[in-house]
Amino acid sequence: MRERTCAIIVIGNEILSGKVQDTNAYFATRELRKLGVTLKRIAVVPDELDAIAEEVAYCAARFEFVLTSGGVGPTHDDITMEGVARAFKRKLVIHPELERLIHQHFADRVNAAGLKMAEVPDGAVLNATHDLRFPTVQLENVYILPGIPQIFEPKLLALAGRFATDPYYIHVIYTTAGEGAIAEHLNTCLKSYPDLMLGSYPRVGDPEYRVKLTLESKDHDYLERAFSHLLELLPKEVVVKTE
Amino acid sequence: MRERTCAIIVIGNEILSGKVQDTNAYFATRELRKLGVTLKRIAVVPDELDAIAEEVAYCAARFEFVLTSGGVGPTHDDITMEGVARAFKRKLVIHPELERLIHQHFADRVNAAGLKMAEVPDGAVLNATHDLRFPTVQLENVYILPGIPQIFEPKLLALAGRFATDPYYIHVIYTTAGEGAIAEHLNTCLKSYPDLMLGSYPRVGDPEYRVKLTLESKDHDYLERAFSHLLELLPKEVVVKTE
Repeated sequence: MRERTCAIIVIGNEILSGKVQDTNAYFATRELRKLGVTLKRIAVVPDELDAIAEEVAYCAARFEFVLTSGGVGPTHDDITMEGVARAFKRKLVIHPELERLIHQHFADRVNAAGLKMAEVPDGAVLNATHDLRFPTVQLENVYILPGIPQIFEPKLLALAGRFATDPYYIHVIYTTAGEGAIAEHLNTCLKSYPDLMLGSYPRVGDPEYRVKLTLESKDHDYLERAFSHLLELLPKEVVVKTE
Repeated sequence: MRERTCAIIVIGNEILSGKVQDTNAYFATRELRKLGVTLKRIAVVPDELDAIAEEVAYCAARFEFVLTSGGVGPTHDDITMEGVARAFKRKLVIHPELERLIHQHFADRVNAAGLKMAEVPDGAVLNATHDLRFPTVQLENVYILPGIPQIFEPKLLALAGRFATDPYYIHVIYTTAGEGAIAEHLNTCLKSYPDLMLGSYPRVGDPEYRVKLTLESKDHDYLERAFSHLLELLPKEVVVKTE
């Protein structure tokens, strides 16, 4: 199966000023990995039209799909819809189905600010599932999700089916050697297995190991051969555990 | 005092694949805020030369300074130095002082992989302080920090003095009203105080409040006037606490 690539754009001054710690990007990162999607980029941008539009245009042109998080509520700083619209040179329009849902949900509490949430870029479609109160707005290959984690997470999970592709296979080697001591073995292994995704992650202060090596591939047999090869290259005494 | 702007670039496939959760960006975000620096962008990019070079060039041209995190160890996927060099159209050179420090620290354990850590973009300078084992490499307005949090954090703190500028003043209002109910009051307040940085953060499932409003400015008196004005606009019964 072909590779599916994705980017995540987190929108909000509250993240860049440290007032709120984003958790959506990490949640999405793990979910996308499970689905076999290759996440190529995460960007956190402020509540500024040009910054949003530029980043959305950049990612939408390069990756198969894009998830945005945040900036879709009723307040003055919620300008993601306008930013996405600008990225695709569309105007904002009221979506009749969203307007109906907002009236249905908020009843007589609807005001101008609430109806702002019915505005979408012209041409946007709605992705509805029975377990979501509000559908997820999609324009071209961009899915526009809210920043509140309790809403972002179920909305992403509801979309997961359409993103799924073939998964990565993975092996892990824990070693007591430092990175410098094993770097040449890793390079040798990569010469034989250039398509292997090989990660090397030093850990400080762990009595059990110093470096965690991750080997990944979408080709199961290729991974197994590369894993065996690297285990032969590494001195036996430095390997404490494999997974 | 003038505004100082900054971007953070996190480099590493391990972050984008969810194998490691980045903590450096959030740590830096809070430290920069304390220093009065305006963080305008966070980007997480893969261990790919073009992706690193393109993001570094983008940020270095737009913001006063840039911090990078990750990709500076001895292994095959540590290509941040090369990426930064490419962004500024420089070549990589061995820095004699770094080479000396590596020989001093690793003694007879130095190999080719270890010496790779002495390579820097041509023209880079070293920022040394007495409490750091290795100085922080800087090229133009880009500071190149390692990804391991136990090294990233002290290196950033050692640089803090040169980044500091005038701090933000802040007030917080906690309200039991929903965003939709107060959005128009926020807009009214912003008409009178257009330079106010006004944030509105809904919280789900907290019995104490539904929306946290943050008011910020580098001008203390301006902030006080805007804070009083917004408190007059909001219905008294929805304000549960102010800070």
